[in-house]
Amino acid sequence: MSDFASLLPPTYKEEVARWVRDDCPSTDIGGFVVGEKIETAHLLCKSSGVLAGVPFAQAVFEMMSLEVEWLIPEGTLIDVSSSASKKVIVAIVRGKCRNILLAERTALNTLSRASGVASQARRASDVAKAQSWRGYVAGTRKTTPGFKVVEKYALLVGGVATHRQDLSQMVMLKDNHIWSAGSISNAVTKARTAAGFSMKIEVECQSVDEACEAAGAGADIVMLDNFSHEELQVAAASVKSAFPTVLIEASGGITESTMHLYMGPSIDIISQGSLTQGYACIDFSLKIIPNA
Amino acid sequence: MSDFASLLPPTYKEEVARWVRDDCPSTDIGGFVVGEKIETAHLLCKSSGVLAGVPFAQAVFEMMSLEVEWLIPEGTLIDVSSSASKKVIVAIVRGKCRNILLAERTALNTLSRASGVASQARRASDVAKAQSWRGYVAGTRKTTPGFKVVEKYALLVGGVATHRQDLSQMVMLKDNHIWSAGSISNAVTKARTAAGFSMKIEVECQSVDEACEAAGAGADIVMLDNFSHEELQVAAASVKSAFPTVLIEASGGITESTMHLYMGPSIDIISQGSLTQGYACIDFSLKIIPNA
Amino acid sequence: MSDFASLLPPTYKEEVARWVRDDCPSTDIGGFVVGEKIETAHLLCKSSGVLAGVPFAQAVFEMMSLEVEWLIPEGTLIDVSSSASKKVIVAIVRGKCRNILLAERTALNTLSRASGVASQARRASDVAKAQSWRGYVAGTRKTTPGFKVVEKYALLVGGVATHRQDLSQMVMLKDNHIWSAGSISNAVTKARTAAGFSMKIEVECQSVDEACEAAGAGADIVMLDNFSHEELQVAAASVKSAFPTVLIEASGGITESTMHLYMGPSIDIISQGSLTQGYACIDFSLKIIPNA
Amino acid sequence: MSDFASLLPPTYKEEVARWVRDDCPSTDIGGFVVGEKIETAHLLCKSSGVLAGVPFAQAVFEMMSLEVEWLIPEGTLIDVSSSASKKVIVAIVRGKCRNILLAERTALNTLSRASGVASQARRASDVAKAQSWRGYVAGTRKTTPGFKVVEKYALLVGGVATHRQDLSQMVMLKDNHIWSAGSISNAVTKARTAAGFSMKIEVECQSVDEACEAAGAGADIVMLDNFSHEELQVAAASVKSAFPTVLIEASGGITESTMHLYMGPSIDIISQGSLTQGYACIDFSLKIIPNA
Amino acid sequence: MSDFASLLPPTYKEEVARWVRDDCPSTDIGGFVVGEKIETAHLLCKSSGVLAGVPFAQAVFEMMSLEVEWLIPEGTLIDVSSSASKKVIVAIVRGKCRNILLAERTALNTLSRASGVASQARRASDVAKAQSWRGYVAGTRKTTPGFKVVEKYALLVGGVATHRQDLSQMVMLKDNHIWSAGSISNAVTKARTAAGFSMKIEVECQSVDEACEAAGAGADIVMLDNFSHEELQVAAASVKSAFPTVLIEASGGITESTMHLYMGPSIDIISQGSLTQGYACIDFSLKIIPNA
Amino acid sequence: MSDFASLLPPTYKEEVARWVRDDCPSTDIGGFVVGEKIETAHLLCKSSGVLAGVPFAQAVFEMMSLEVEWLIPEGTLIDVSSSASKKVIVAIVRGKCRNILLAERTALNTLSRASGVASQARRASDVAKAQSWRGYVAGTRKTTPGFKVVEKYALLVGGVATHRQDLSQMVMLKDNHIWSAGSISNAVTKARTAAGFSMKIEVECQSVDEACEAAGAGADIVMLDNFSHEELQVAAASVKSAFPTVLIEASGGITESTMHLYMGPSIDIISQGSLTQGYACIDFSLKIIPNA
Repeated sequence: MSDFASLLPPTYKEEVARWVRDDCPSTDIGGFVVGEKIETAHLLCKSSGVLAGVPFAQAVFEMMSLEVEWLIPEGTLIDVSSSASKKVIVAIVRGKCRNILLAERTALNTLSRASGVASQARRASDVAKAQSWRGYVAGTRKTTPGFKVVEKYALLVGGVATHRQDLSQMVMLKDNHIWSAGSISNAVTKARTAAGFSMKIEVECQSVDEACEAAGAGADIVMLDNFSHEELQVAAASVKSAFPTVLIEASGGITESTMHLYMGPSIDIISQGSLTQGYACIDFSLKIIPNA
Repeated sequence: MSDFASLLPPTYKEEVARWVRDDCPSTDIGGFVVGEKIETAHLLCKSSGVLAGVPFAQAVFEMMSLEVEWLIPEGTLIDVSSSASKKVIVAIVRGKCRNILLAERTALNTLSRASGVASQARRASDVAKAQSWRGYVAGTRKTTPGFKVVEKYALLVGGVATHRQDLSQMVMLKDNHIWSAGSISNAVTKARTAAGFSMKIEVECQSVDEACEAAGAGADIVMLDNFSHEELQVAAASVKSAFPTVLIEASGGITESTMHLYMGPSIDIISQGSLTQGYACIDFSLKIIPNA
Repeated sequence: MSDFASLLPPTYKEEVARWVRDDCPSTDIGGFVVGEKIETAHLLCKSSGVLAGVPFAQAVFEMMSLEVEWLIPEGTLIDVSSSASKKVIVAIVRGKCRNILLAERTALNTLSRASGVASQARRASDVAKAQSWRGYVAGTRKTTPGFKVVEKYALLVGGVATHRQDLSQMVMLKDNHIWSAGSISNAVTKARTAAGFSMKIEVECQSVDEACEAAGAGADIVMLDNFSHEELQVAAASVKSAFPTVLIEASGGITESTMHLYMGPSIDIISQGSLTQGYACIDFSLKIIPNA
Repeated sequence: MSDFASLLPPTYKEEVARWVRDDCPSTDIGGFVVGEKIETAHLLCKSSGVLAGVPFAQAVFEMMSLEVEWLIPEGTLIDVSSSASKKVIVAIVRGKCRNILLAERTALNTLSRASGVASQARRASDVAKAQSWRGYVAGTRKTTPGFKVVEKYALLVGGVATHRQDLSQMVMLKDNHIWSAGSISNAVTKARTAAGFSMKIEVECQSVDEACEAAGAGADIVMLDNFSHEELQVAAASVKSAFPTVLIEASGGITESTMHLYMGPSIDIISQGSLTQGYACIDFSLKIIPNA
Repeated sequence: MSDFASLLPPTYKEEVARWVRDDCPSTDIGGFVVGEKIETAHLLCKSSGVLAGVPFAQAVFEMMSLEVEWLIPEGTLIDVSSSASKKVIVAIVRGKCRNILLAERTALNTLSRASGVASQARRASDVAKAQSWRGYVAGTRKTTPGFKVVEKYALLVGGVATHRQDLSQMVMLKDNHIWSAGSISNAVTKARTAAGFSMKIEVECQSVDEACEAAGAGADIVMLDNFSHEELQVAAASVKSAFPTVLIEASGGITESTMHLYMGPSIDIISQGSLTQGYACIDFSLKIIPNA
Repeated sequence: MSDFASLLPPTYKEEVARWVRDDCPSTDIGGFVVGEKIETAHLLCKSSGVLAGVPFAQAVFEMMSLEVEWLIPEGTLIDVSSSASKKVIVAIVRGKCRNILLAERTALNTLSRASGVASQARRASDVAKAQSWRGYVAGTRKTTPGFKVVEKYALLVGGVATHRQDLSQMVMLKDNHIWSAGSISNAVTKARTAAGFSMKIEVECQSVDEACEAAGAGADIVMLDNFSHEELQVAAASVKSAFPTVLIEASGGITESTMHLYMGPSIDIISQGSLTQGYACIDFSLKIIPNA
């Protein structure tokens, strides 16, 4: 099984540390009450979904000098209905009581959201498999400020593509860029001056003509934006026949229930903002086991 | 109208700056394509809800040296259905084209989430008004790591209480604290040693007896956790008759559709994690107006 | 014995690290001279007082990878006059010689100040005990910028209340707030909108009428500011009889030698800026033991 | 008049910003009550002393976008007894009411401490003048962690020397360094390897022999530590006659009342830890002027 | 003319600020000597080369509140030999004297290095033009830690490609990756799982067979590493005929004097570490004009 | 052998951490490909020179939790020509494969530059020894922004003096300071007010008269700027005879090939900007050993 934790940058632990500090800016009277006795706690999953966010929760616990044993690996689809208590033990956490409580809320808030994203991504990935479609389902930059690193990572755990992480990772030219540059060709040419060979260029297009202009100017990817699914297939086939190596992305108003309609043979990428925006969360809790 | 922006700490602009930087860690080739011509853009609301997050979006725009004119004030319930285009202009943004695009995604991501939280909070607040209930609907600490400042603020815009911001602002003693301290009384007494008179102490209780022990030991608030709504009213009345000045909070599995059942005369606070977790987002976009 | 170190936030070690770095911004030629041989040093107390600041000194030593054994616990009243050398060994520090010297000055500067505050707080606390008064002696926000976390903590070690840590922890409404809001009632009502149930509200009052208006509007605490001690007792009794649950704070020009006069039955809190401003320091030094 | 503000590093405003943020980590409900109306406030001095800390207070006010007019220049000896109200207006501050209150406490805490240090330094400087002594009265590294920049600066405003700012600015070799290096000569020689010609080297000595060894090995300054004032003059004269260009520092237990005894013709420097430790503070307040 | 400043991320000014602070960690006695009189200075170029680094120098000056008028635009080839004084005025800087001196060294150090890189890049670009070769001359990741943003930017000013900025911008698979993954095909396939469609994948190859395996597995670019220039042309042609859309990079021991030999029709990219390592610097100085 | 690592400040590891993070701001797909298997790598030197930068490379490896065994100590002159492979193993690095690759480029870039500076410094130092000259060869502040700590340190490893680290470590008065202050004497006197006895003052002089004015006013060092080597010796002798204890620095256009001409008996310091600017680099690489 792939370990996506290996692609997190060295900086992610600093963001995690910032979250923990943010939850206790001046005094921790609860911590003073419980003190530093060593305790053991169970991390419980209480609603069904794909477990995601383990490296972030791990970093929270490590920051608080806690030992963690994960019983269920990242990416597992957990089904709580099979448990009498409707609760599944995901990990065992051990360390100073005060530290467990300082870590608790940040760890749970991270896991619940990462698992929410991954669960939704897994469902989208399953639709593609059911359609035997070979393209990429992908997220967008519609992520929560300050929490993007978790949401993008959770997309991968769920089985879909992150799309670009940020403005520095791939060039995406939209209407604003094209107006400014005067034409699609101008915009692509200027972008290539700085992008060189190391970054891909994508252009958001409203028609087959625009898509062909973009591809002709050297775009690597063209997005057909807000087409109906019937029009999309025709348009995409037309672009592909002229530019076989260009990738075609469909985007705009595509939902979990309609995405199968867009999964045609000339479509390479289907992106959905809803994968990282307005997603449901999975329920987790942390319970100290008395006299463990 | 109240201006909740005045209660944001001086630090919130630094978090905003971190979000903007996070979206462009190394190069901005899109910015290179559009350059630094002065352009004007419309910030559009495209789905109905309560506008929230204006000070954060303002900070994003200011960081990028953009001028903004807000046409609709924070806290307004926007109804896009009354517009033919289903879009309402919320603000006019003006400045260097490159800078508009650097600000765009962070501003939109913030507004869509803040407005999502405020919209849900407004609905909860409306339920309380419809019931003529005088207590507090409140959020919890189930917030997105790194984004709490926005979500807590949006609760206030929506009309509900933030509950404590973090572990340093109010003492909440739960099962773990009580086990560690030996009893509810011990836990409250120890907490008071450090809290002094300046912080409130709340205790999570499973029974009327526990609630009375907590109130007797000096707790300011008792939470009756996971009671059915019928049992809750009886229990709360019993605690109130013994300790008239203690506040009583109901919590646990309360949803938008069931909350009216909990709004009894002895209940002072009803808290819901769902106000800041798994909320729907409001749709915004930013469009540059050619030749504006 | 209570361990107040457990209520320090995770951030305090970062402040400590900043202090250490601040003492050596570019080169450490003294460190180059002594090198990295392992040495043992004695941390000595050289003037009598209450030991405080141990967790901060510990953090300094840990940052420099030093091992420390504390022979005297935090909060102990050390009497150096009983020692022939007028010096008491407080701790034994062991590690690289260079690192001991990098830690030395910051650790000593912190301990001498924290112990100075705690010593004074202990004397104030002793006055209250001698008077059999049950209220809170408390500090204020008159703390050293950048060093508040130590001074507030040392108040607790000395046995008095911190009062609010910062503007975010309790609401205090003074003349400026009242003018702005138009009246005490308006100011309290507006504050409650944002404070909800989770934060206390205090109002600084110049008369019994103002105090009663504040209490009536929902203030949790009223401060009777700059009253003579005779007038104070009468005024406080009058407010208490009307509002038995409101807390009453006396403040303004109260010193160690006059505080006993203010400790009446209707007074709950006596605050003194001098507890953290202009305090005397306790003398400490660190001596490497040759051939230890 | 000299403007010592010009020697503060670009970083000092960042420390100031940290102090302000530290006073309001999450919410500012007082600020919410007063809002953003423009108000004018008087900064008042309420006890006599040398005004110091103006650039730091200025930075606090600027951070909060306030305008300040200083009526009394840095370094002035203010005598409040000549005023009927025992208060002297030092500056007029103008801006958003909320911002004035966010700046208030940090500005006052800084001024009161800086002026306390400068007042004491001025008295020490006056003793030297009265003795017609031409050497340097100097501070030490016994400063408050995180607040050193203010205390060292205030020494200059008061008229005495800062001594080294930190371990990186001058080399000071003490007993620990000498033991480690084997001898005073070895220690000085090794230090010179790294110090080159750009940093001075001082050696703490217990005898004339040690001082002569240090000077002979190339030390720029020798400290005669804990000598009685009678012995000191003899020892210093002896060292000077052998090494006329070496500077001689007296240190150890010298107080304001005894320092004149140490001011002999062969003494170049008298340093006192008490100049920045345990100093009294000057009293300041900030009052908003209604309807100004 | 293209303005490459528009592709610098919002963060670059923070790095610049760090450099300036680094040059004055505690006190600025030189600044104290000159004070805050307004002065005018000339920024002079004293050796011939391509001017680069203007946005960084501009940021230094802005940080110190200085006004700058640039007389020569970024990217200009300056020839000082045509001036009698062998000096060309590049910009006029105006502001507080102290601030000019605080900015001076950081601005000069940046310009001299950026212009050194750009001058060398321009020469490389000129070789390609002379050969009528249409591929990319490119830098590598052999940049100075902490100064990469300047060096990569200067490559663009000089007219060559940056190659990837960092590990997050393009995937480069080398021998270590291939050993770990078991084969080139495995490594490319695994990389594609995480890279999706938004990042390019390059593989370092030792033979035509390896290059064809990489291209067949989906690599976008293959590097032919350390081939002689004769072998390179044959190998590249062979790979191109099998995989016409794959890009081919030549690397390893290529210098300014040999690069023309590698510029064949099947070669798309020639990368050289020496473009950002061991480069000569251009000489600049800043002179205050008395009585300007 | 001297261990110059002991004079690096506690902050240098933070700069190193910033460099590593800068190389991987968002995702590490290469790391994902290789995963976290434990591997062993050889750090190889591939061109002859003085090894320098070991503590920085060590910090890079430690940040990535790698173990390193250094086979060759800092400061060694490595001669690769004696090895058949023209490669010398400098260190063995062991740890997670992903982490080795995250550390690789930053470690190599640091070592190659530090060793380049040290190699050049060693040659300069050897010239002085060959001339039996006892003064200091020294660097300047012409260092790479953000990388100064490495370059200054490497000068010491190579055997020459760092000169001042920054504006806060020694006072250097140049033409601008002198114009502003009105005269050399005024400038030195004013500087002494703030510098006290703890910092040295140097003055840049254009003539013997200026040098004597500076020395007479209390300067510790005078720089004779841009003198021919013949004039320099005469001028220096003249200044020395009048002020035997002042140090004399020669600077301006001195190169490795001409420096021996400046090494006269009255010259104490010869500084060269080229020691840290435009230096050649030493070639290093890191190779994972399969099945090690």
